[in-house]
Amino acid sequence: MRAGACARKSIGATLGIGMALAAVTAANAHDTNYAPPQRPLSIKSMGSFTVGGEIKATDGTPGGLFGSNSNTGHIAVNQMYVQYQVPTGADAHVPVVLIHGGTLSGSSYETTPDGRMGWLEYFLRNDRAVYVPDQASRGRSGFDVTGYNHVRLGLAPVSTLPEMFVFTEEQGWLTFRFGPKFGTTFKGLQYPIQAADNLARQTIPDINAVLPTPNPTLTNLAQLGRQLKGAILLGHSESGLFPEQAALTDPTGIKGMISVEPGDCTSLIPTSKEVKALAKIPTLIVYGDNIEAAGTVFPNWPQAFKGCQTYVATINKAGGHALLLHLPDVGVKGNSHMMMQDKNNLQVASLILSWIDKNVEPSNHKPGWH
Amino acid sequence: MRAGACARKSIGATLGIGMALAAVTAANAHDTNYAPPQRPLSIKSMGSFTVGGEIKATDGTPGGLFGSNSNTGHIAVNQMYVQYQVPTGADAHVPVVLIHGGTLSGSSYETTPDGRMGWLEYFLRNDRAVYVPDQASRGRSGFDVTGYNHVRLGLAPVSTLPEMFVFTEEQGWLTFRFGPKFGTTFKGLQYPIQAADNLARQTIPDINAVLPTPNPTLTNLAQLGRQLKGAILLGHSESGLFPEQAALTDPTGIKGMISVEPGDCTSLIPTSKEVKALAKIPTLIVYGDNIEAAGTVFPNWPQAFKGCQTYVATINKAGGHALLLHLPDVGVKGNSHMMMQDKNNLQVASLILSWIDKNVEPSNHKPGWH
Repeated sequence: MRAGACARKSIGATLGIGMALAAVTAANAHDTNYAPPQRPLSIKSMGSFTVGGEIKATDGTPGGLFGSNSNTGHIAVNQMYVQYQVPTGADAHVPVVLIHGGTLSGSSYETTPDGRMGWLEYFLRNDRAVYVPDQASRGRSGFDVTGYNHVRLGLAPVSTLPEMFVFTEEQGWLTFRFGPKFGTTFKGLQYPIQAADNLARQTIPDINAVLPTPNPTLTNLAQLGRQLKGAILLGHSESGLFPEQAALTDPTGIKGMISVEPGDCTSLIPTSKEVKALAKIPTLIVYGDNIEAAGTVFPNWPQAFKGCQTYVATINKAGGHALLLHLPDVGVKGNSHMMMQDKNNLQVASLILSWIDKNVEPSNHKPGWH
Repeated sequence: MRAGACARKSIGATLGIGMALAAVTAANAHDTNYAPPQRPLSIKSMGSFTVGGEIKATDGTPGGLFGSNSNTGHIAVNQMYVQYQVPTGADAHVPVVLIHGGTLSGSSYETTPDGRMGWLEYFLRNDRAVYVPDQASRGRSGFDVTGYNHVRLGLAPVSTLPEMFVFTEEQGWLTFRFGPKFGTTFKGLQYPIQAADNLARQTIPDINAVLPTPNPTLTNLAQLGRQLKGAILLGHSESGLFPEQAALTDPTGIKGMISVEPGDCTSLIPTSKEVKALAKIPTLIVYGDNIEAAGTVFPNWPQAFKGCQTYVATINKAGGHALLLHLPDVGVKGNSHMMMQDKNNLQVASLILSWIDKNVEPSNHKPGWH
């Protein structure tokens, strides 16, 4: 048994400052001074592929080059697009999968809306192989058009038309905890608010309404972990609990679970069998600042935070190795829900890397993971 | 005046084999033996950004976290997502923009459906800065949901519901010239047909139906060219003429135009003023094999090919510098419409690079383009 896990078990459900500080204090320091980058990236391999997805018959693809009557045939649905880069030093580390949140795509982790380095490049510069999916039914993963075109073709009533969800700037402002009301920011906010219109330009329709249950992204993520012979899954917001939910479908390839500001922890009410499975995988949950302050207009945040405290306590009580890192408790203040784009985004990433160093590596590391 | 341009002008509208061979014979040979890659890529900078797009008021964003009545606010529309990588040797070359075709995204140029290197990595390995957009209203660029949700909310009749276009595998087979009928391939076909289901998994909805006219992707591409202080635009199929159409909005940043299998050349019927503008920019149009054979089921291809021959003649007659490269005429046979994914995709890319070397560089090159 690892000493770290043992020590943490003895603390049990206690989630104090000391524990958080200890858990994110790494053997290696991670440079956050990457503006502008000082050296070229050395990339061993790169590309993209899809995971999962089925070929299905459809009668909802009208138009195109063959006229409006040729609307039948076969299309692929529920696949997950994954883009990746493997730096030359990556063999020493477990690959990281960065999963985006609601009404967003993998671009969340690329250049920030105000033009700074994102978590993708930061992880690459710290020698991690990084895999960035678009969730099934989003962005480059595509979605099943059948239901929409059925209504258009008169094959189904309007009441069956699936919703297309997208955050307006006004909704995003409150949801992402930029401030207590639209146009007003929290004091010391780390989000580069002058670039908010560019965040809107990264915001894309969420077509989850056409997905089957359970969300195929979960099994696709588990499959990706297996394909990589082990990976750390990092989810955000809507996908905050995807690492845990994916592990419940198959934990084989999931070596670490990082939940950045899950919108909810109470939806994951594990059975004792599930608790036992989840407790075997190191877990980090991260929340930023202004949770309580945002609660007056958007009660979801204090509820989610509280639910995740309970979840972490449940996992640790079962012998697990989970940590809730509340950034203000370690002196990192002003972070929004979109912390991968905040002005101190690399500082937050370095805390996450330090947690990985100490809690997932090197004890879990096997050479030749990718 | 460049000697090459002069020689080509004297040939005028003649599009024989000798000319094509001369135009694609480079000073530098481009290695096509990249499986597996022999050396790491050295990447100076990387990331993504959006080009263009407006913030608009909408009343079509129902649901989400704020209930079904809060469907008003502001969203961004018509922006174009662009991902880029700049290799360390790129200062010596003009950046290249790879634009995807219909019901596809930028992933077309990444790893091929059967797992080989795509044109993106090939161009990077030949020291080109590469910019890969998703067209406005596609993939990571998002699209305007207002019209769909208006119908869903009862604010507009079903007849206003915009079409969502996606190629079925059956339609794609014919359109992409895999064979004379679904399930049958042309003899010597270069497309890795065993991976056709993975091509379907790259196929995503084309939401052009909600775009204004003219397509904002055109002005976005012209703006991208200006931002890069000069770029070569390469379009494919649906976007085959986007380089030319973008140049007609503003040629300032467009240093070369490459049209890979445009679906149509007759739609571009330039005025004499437009011909004059287009004739100033080196132009390459590329077509693969089986144009006539495919014409029996899909007459579009011989029509498009013929229209592009006329277009090239028109440009050259006006003193321009255009070439129609019909691959079988230079001994490269079996190529499909999806030649960036064909088994000999790097051979085709090397011909394109050779054309760039000889016809766009070095005479057009100014140091510090990116």
